[in-house]
Formats: sequence, C-alpha cells, structure tokens
Amino acid sequence: MNWKSRFSGWLLVVALFSSSGALAEEEFTPPKTAQEMGLMQGFPPPADKRISNRNFMQAPQNRWSFQHIRELQPTREIFRGTAPASQFESEPLDLDALEFKTSDDRRITFSRWLQESHTDSIVVLHQGKIVYERYLNGMTPHTQHQMFSVTKSFIGTMVLVLADQGRIDLARTAGSYLPELAGSAFEDATVQHLLDMTTAVKFSEDYLDRDSDIWRYGYVFSLWGDPPEGYRGPMSLYDYLPTLRKQGEHGHAFHYVTPNTDVLGWIASRIAKQSVSAALESMLFQPLGPERDAYIWLDGSATEMAGGGLNITARDAARFGQMILQNGFFNGKRIIPAAVAKRILRPGDPAPFNRFYRDPWYEQVAFAYHDQWWTFNNAHKAVSALGIHGQQIYLDATAQMVVVKQSSDPAPESDINETESPLAYQALAEHLMNR
Amino acid sequence: MNWKSRFSGWLLVVALFSSSGALAEEEFTPPKTAQEMGLMQGFPPPADKRISNRNFMQAPQNRWSFQHIRELQPTREIFRGTAPASQFESEPLDLDALEFKTSDDRRITFSRWLQESHTDSIVVLHQGKIVYERYLNGMTPHTQHQMFSVTKSFIGTMVLVLADQGRIDLARTAGSYLPELAGSAFEDATVQHLLDMTTAVKFSEDYLDRDSDIWRYGYVFSLWGDPPEGYRGPMSLYDYLPTLRKQGEHGHAFHYVTPNTDVLGWIASRIAKQSVSAALESMLFQPLGPERDAYIWLDGSATEMAGGGLNITARDAARFGQMILQNGFFNGKRIIPAAVAKRILRPGDPAPFNRFYRDPWYEQVAFAYHDQWWTFNNAHKAVSALGIHGQQIYLDATAQMVVVKQSSDPAPESDINETESPLAYQALAEHLMNR
Repeated sequence: MNWKSRFSGWLLVVALFSSSGALAEEEFTPPKTAQEMGLMQGFPPPADKRISNRNFMQAPQNRWSFQHIRELQPTREIFRGTAPASQFESEPLDLDALEFKTSDDRRITFSRWLQESHTDSIVVLHQGKIVYERYLNGMTPHTQHQMFSVTKSFIGTMVLVLADQGRIDLARTAGSYLPELAGSAFEDATVQHLLDMTTAVKFSEDYLDRDSDIWRYGYVFSLWGDPPEGYRGPMSLYDYLPTLRKQGEHGHAFHYVTPNTDVLGWIASRIAKQSVSAALESMLFQPLGPERDAYIWLDGSATEMAGGGLNITARDAARFGQMILQNGFFNGKRIIPAAVAKRILRPGDPAPFNRFYRDPWYEQVAFAYHDQWWTFNNAHKAVSALGIHGQQIYLDATAQMVVVKQSSDPAPESDINETESPLAYQALAEHLMNR
Repeated sequence: MNWKSRFSGWLLVVALFSSSGALAEEEFTPPKTAQEMGLMQGFPPPADKRISNRNFMQAPQNRWSFQHIRELQPTREIFRGTAPASQFESEPLDLDALEFKTSDDRRITFSRWLQESHTDSIVVLHQGKIVYERYLNGMTPHTQHQMFSVTKSFIGTMVLVLADQGRIDLARTAGSYLPELAGSAFEDATVQHLLDMTTAVKFSEDYLDRDSDIWRYGYVFSLWGDPPEGYRGPMSLYDYLPTLRKQGEHGHAFHYVTPNTDVLGWIASRIAKQSVSAALESMLFQPLGPERDAYIWLDGSATEMAGGGLNITARDAARFGQMILQNGFFNGKRIIPAAVAKRILRPGDPAPFNRFYRDPWYEQVAFAYHDQWWTFNNAHKAVSALGIHGQQIYLDATAQMVVVKQSSDPAPESDINETESPLAYQALAEHLMNR
C-alpha cells in the first residue's frame, strides 16, 4: 500500500487499468458501478464476475471489493461502543455544478470530477456542518470503505498523542523500543524519522516485480493471494519487519515506505499494551461518538496492517477530521491535545521532500509530509490523509472545511485523484468562504 | 462442522483434546481462560501462543478463536440496523448453587457445570426476562461468538418462512431450484429432506482422515488451513456442493450432513435474490432489534457457510429464541408466522432417528430432528439449536424458558455439553416453574 512511488511499476499499471481517459465533455460516460458490471451479482455470480481473495485488488474488481474488504480478508473490529452517536448539523448546498479548473486547463464541474475519479462517497463539512454528502457505486452511509494509507494518519496521530503523554519519545530509536528490530533498517531510526518517512530503508515498490519488497509485504497480508510454491519468506508482520535493511542515512530524504507505519503501530502496541485496533478504539475512535464500527485488515496471525488496513464510514472519517480541525475538541470533550492537532495542521518542511523522488508532483501538487500527514501546495496549504485508489481526509483550516472522499479508482495512483483533488478542494473552500 | 457422527474420529479427538476429565469435587480446577494461558497476549505473542488461520480450530487455541473468528477468516456482517435495540426486562436470580444430577449420577452445581463445560457465555430467559447471565473466559455482552451448527437452525427457520410465503415448496427437489445440482446427491432430494437431514448422501465425517468429505468441506472454508500441495478439488462452496454423490434413498434415515444446510442456504439465496446473510438480516435479524451486528464466515469467494458460520452475541441469540417461544411475535411486531414458530417447537418424529446411527445418545438424550432443530428426550421435550464445542439455543415452551450457551469446549462433541445440558436445563426449568 505504498503511495507516490512514481518510478515504480505504477505508471504501467495505470496505463493498463485506467479506463477514465475520456476528458472532453461530449465523450464522457460515468464509470460503471460494480452492480452495472455484474460483479458479485447472483448466487453464484458468473465465473468471470466472481471476486476472490486472489483477484480483489485488481480493476474492475476493486469497484466491489473496496466496500467489502471484510468479506475477503481477516479483520478486527474497532468498536464504536454503545453511546449514542455524535450528531452533525446539516446545511445542504448544491455544489454539483461548482466548476474548477483542472491542471490541464479544463473547466469541470465538481459532480463530474467525482464521477471521473471513481468516487464511492464524499462528505464535505463546512464550519462543522455537513454541506454536501453523496454516495455512489452502491455505497451507503453505513458502509465501511477501505482507506489504504489514510490509515497512516490515524496511526501518526495516535503516536503523537502517546508522545504528548510522555509515553513515547520521538527522539528515541525504534530499536530501543523493539529489540526485535536489531540489525534491521529500523534499529537506529528515530520515531520522528518513521513519522516523517525519512528513514533510509532499502525498499523497492515495483508492483510488476514479484521479487520486490512490496510483494513480500503483500504476501504477509494476502494482497495478491498466496506466495509462489516454495516461497520461504516471512508470513507474519512481526517476522517481516525485521528483515528490511538500511540503505543510506536516516533523516535526510523523504522516502515513502509503508512498513515505517507498521513499525509505528508496533511501537504503539508495545507501549500501550494494546493491539493497534484496541488503542485506536479507545484513544481516537470511541470518543468521537462514531455512527458505525470501523475495522482493520489483519495478517494470517491476526496482526493489524497499520500501514493501510483501516475501513471506516465516510461520516466517521469526517468526525476524525473535524476533531483535528477543532484543535482536538469534539463531541463535547477533548479527544487529543490541542498541541497535537495544531502540529498536524502546520504545513511541514519541504526540504527533504525532493531528495529521493524526481517528480514535479512533489513541488507542484504536494508540498511536504510530516507525522504521517501530507501537505498540499495550494493556496491554503491544506493538510491531508491520502490513500491509493482515491482515499482522502482533507483538512483546510483556513476555510474550516473537511472533505472525506472514498473511491475505487482503477489505478492506485492517478492524476484525476491525486493531482486534481487539491485544485477541486481549493475551489470548494473559496466558494464556501465567499457564500 | 458436523455433529453427532459418533462413529467418526471424534471420540479419538475427544480423548486427545479433552482436559476436563476430573469430575470429583475436590479434584476440580476450572479450565484456564485464554488470557491465563497467554494465548495471543503480547505484541507479538510468543511463538507458541500465536493463533493463526492454520491452528485456530484446535484446543486450546479455540478458547481464544471462537470469540475472534472474524480476525482469522473472511466474514460478512449481518447489520443490526440503526433502530434502538429491543430491551429485556431483568430479574436476576442466583442460580449458581442450583444442583442437578448428571447422567453419571453426580450431583453438580449449575455454576460448576458451566465451568466444566468450558462456557464462555450463558443467558437464561424466563417468561421473557433475563434471570441469569454470565460471561467467562474474556467474553463480554457485545462479543460475537462462533455458533457452528446453531447456524443451521437460523437457516431452517428462514426456509420455513419462505415456504409459508409460498416462495419455496418443501416438497420440491433441490435440483428443481438449482439446476447446478444435477447429478449430485441433492438433485432429487426434497427441501424437506434437506431440512430434516434425511438425504442419502455419501459423506464421511472422519476428522482424522484427510481424504474424507469433511476435510474437503474444510478446505473450502479454510477450517484447517490450505489443502495439501497438488490438491485440485473444489475451493468454493458453489463448486463443492455439486460434487457430493447419492448413497441410498432419501427420506429414510437421519444422517447429519452439514452440506444439506448449505444447499438450503443456496436455495434461499436463489429464491430471495439475496445472499444468505442479507436474507437473514432482513427477514430474521433486524426485526429482533438486536444490540450488535452479527457476522458469518465466508469461503474464499465470499460465499456464506450456511452450515455453521454464524457469529452472534449471547443476548441477540436469546432474542431469536424468545421470538420463537412467543410464537413469532417479538419487539412489538410479528417476525415469523405463528405457524412456523409452532412447527419448530413441536418434538418431531423419532422414527428415522436411529436408522443410520447406532448410538444410545440418539434415544436416551436426543429424541428427534426436524427442520434443522433438535428435540431432546427430557421431560419437556425441549427443542434446541446445537453446535459443536458447546453452542446452544435451548427452547423450553413448557417452562417458558430460553437458554443460550456459548462455549469453547476442547472437544467438538463431549458428554459434558451434549449429554448433561438437557439434564441441567430440565432442572433449571423445574426450578423456575416452582419458584
């Protein structure tokens, strides 16, 4: 579940899978829903429409599977508790026809962009009220949607809270918390390096090379089915993380490596004496007064995928975002320290950002990364959680706006999601501020 | 997930796994909880305390895993909906010290029997009120527990409702609903044969023989990990069921074959145009006003294990039982037709019962089986849903009593659960009637 590995196989994957190339207004037809494609329809579904734990990550199967991860993988619940849900005020605005200018100079309506970017849900909060909420492709307000690397921002927030409580020292090394990591890349990486993705890890993310590190990570979580016959590599997260090796010096360059977050989750578990999901549940989730349980994807020994396994409803993700925008106070109580929320909302340091990658996206679209959150390089320097295939929790403190978007983009990375969304949301923010 | 195959390997399995042999009062020590054994404690748990999707069905791992099936297998939620839960009145009675006489003439207290039989939860309703409720071994009122063949009684009830609505004809053959079953054992079996487990299916349930049918069923649902290398058999339920062959004549002898229920689930899906879980959710579950979501275990292509995959809280299982005891009326509404509830509560015909099996249990303890429900041969001829390892929903219409028991017995079948429970509950019923 890596992100922004622009030199990897993704570009080819995008070219193979992407079907949303038609940009001129007259050519546009909305992408087919899972139901329209007949995916998993009927008892049994036709053989070529069945989705299994071997093909669910592919397009178009992902149009169905991102709302059904629990039906394909072992998962652990993050219980909402038994208290009544916190309530949003609602002030519906018709934003469908709002236009914005894309990076390739098209003028496009917000509703069309949602279609082009394979949106499954969108919730827009302005000043804490729901002003816009849409569910597409069979999704409902109570559907938990796979969030991929948006998960990282929950983990990062939890680690910052533990640090504020004095239970984790951000300057200490991962190896000092987890002796199991001796000899690995993480032994002398600090918690802050992990949070900022500035660890120096030999980690290849070529999704077309089955010998690459991301494939071995994938075997642990059954992302692409079983490993090949004769494979003798690690099959649990705890066995996998110590196998990664150092390459270079920590703290120098931003290098997006999903297992960094899994190490953070492991440290948090060791410190909090709770599983990642139990810690998220008690520290961040139940206090929000969520409407629905969330859940998280597990490996074959019931260990959480902290790097990308969260599944949550759009509204509950919006509660999390709004809590941060309100400096940690939500549902009538303080949930995280104000200092942690303010830290998340600051833009971050762009210096390490372009030292590893060579991609204009890292200056023109994104601006920085810190504490498991992205900063976009738009007028409001908005902060966002981002996951592949179009998952986002976007926080604009200037406009007091939160946007949650859950998607099933055929491509893990696509311009229509990652490049256009900060333009769309900036236009949305300005519209809401001026109404 | 078969039950009552007393000529199979179970007896040996029982001998290997059972640790609850000590019956004299002075020798008794309660079975260790999962936490006391250190199972899945720590991050990571020690290697010999880790539970994976390969060892979770064994004892003592099952002390942990039966409360955590979702963390080991793909599952589909059965959503409680968003309405408030129906409320039980409560009238707590101290039944811990209640004594009853076991089949081997011991006098034993109810609370000790609960310990000996590895109980995880028990809820006793009398006249609709909760009079006794205990949670052991780390279980809580909101924990969904694996129910094994108790699932069958939910499926049977659903099929009877569909029959009452005229949508399923109990006299029609499975093959007439599901052309895919042509040539299989089920082609000319009627729905009623399936309901009563009087189909003539060549099906061996020797758990120690990896070539037996129950092992092939297990491969479909990853009950015991992956099949051996080179295995080319069916890996989805829809592909598996048509492979079973006929042996003998339908309608003659009771022969407990789990796939009968999977065929019933398939017929219900075909008729209701819903997955098994969606049909259960809308027809039987949401109307009860449950407290918690339930969920059901799936194969690798997201098809439900209708024969044994339900996971549900003790209280929500009690709601289901109480609804039947109230002739189908519960939570202020009619949920199933009174005729269906009354049919479930009648004792059934003992004639076919001992034609296949040669086991005194089938006369002395159990009395009959019909419509996916057991009848016990005790004074009240109580009706019960039963699952391996000690899962029960026991309905005593005479005493207006419902007992839900969820357990993690080391043995799939054990006298302490299957032989003693109707004695314990009969004593309980008489106590409640005379108080």
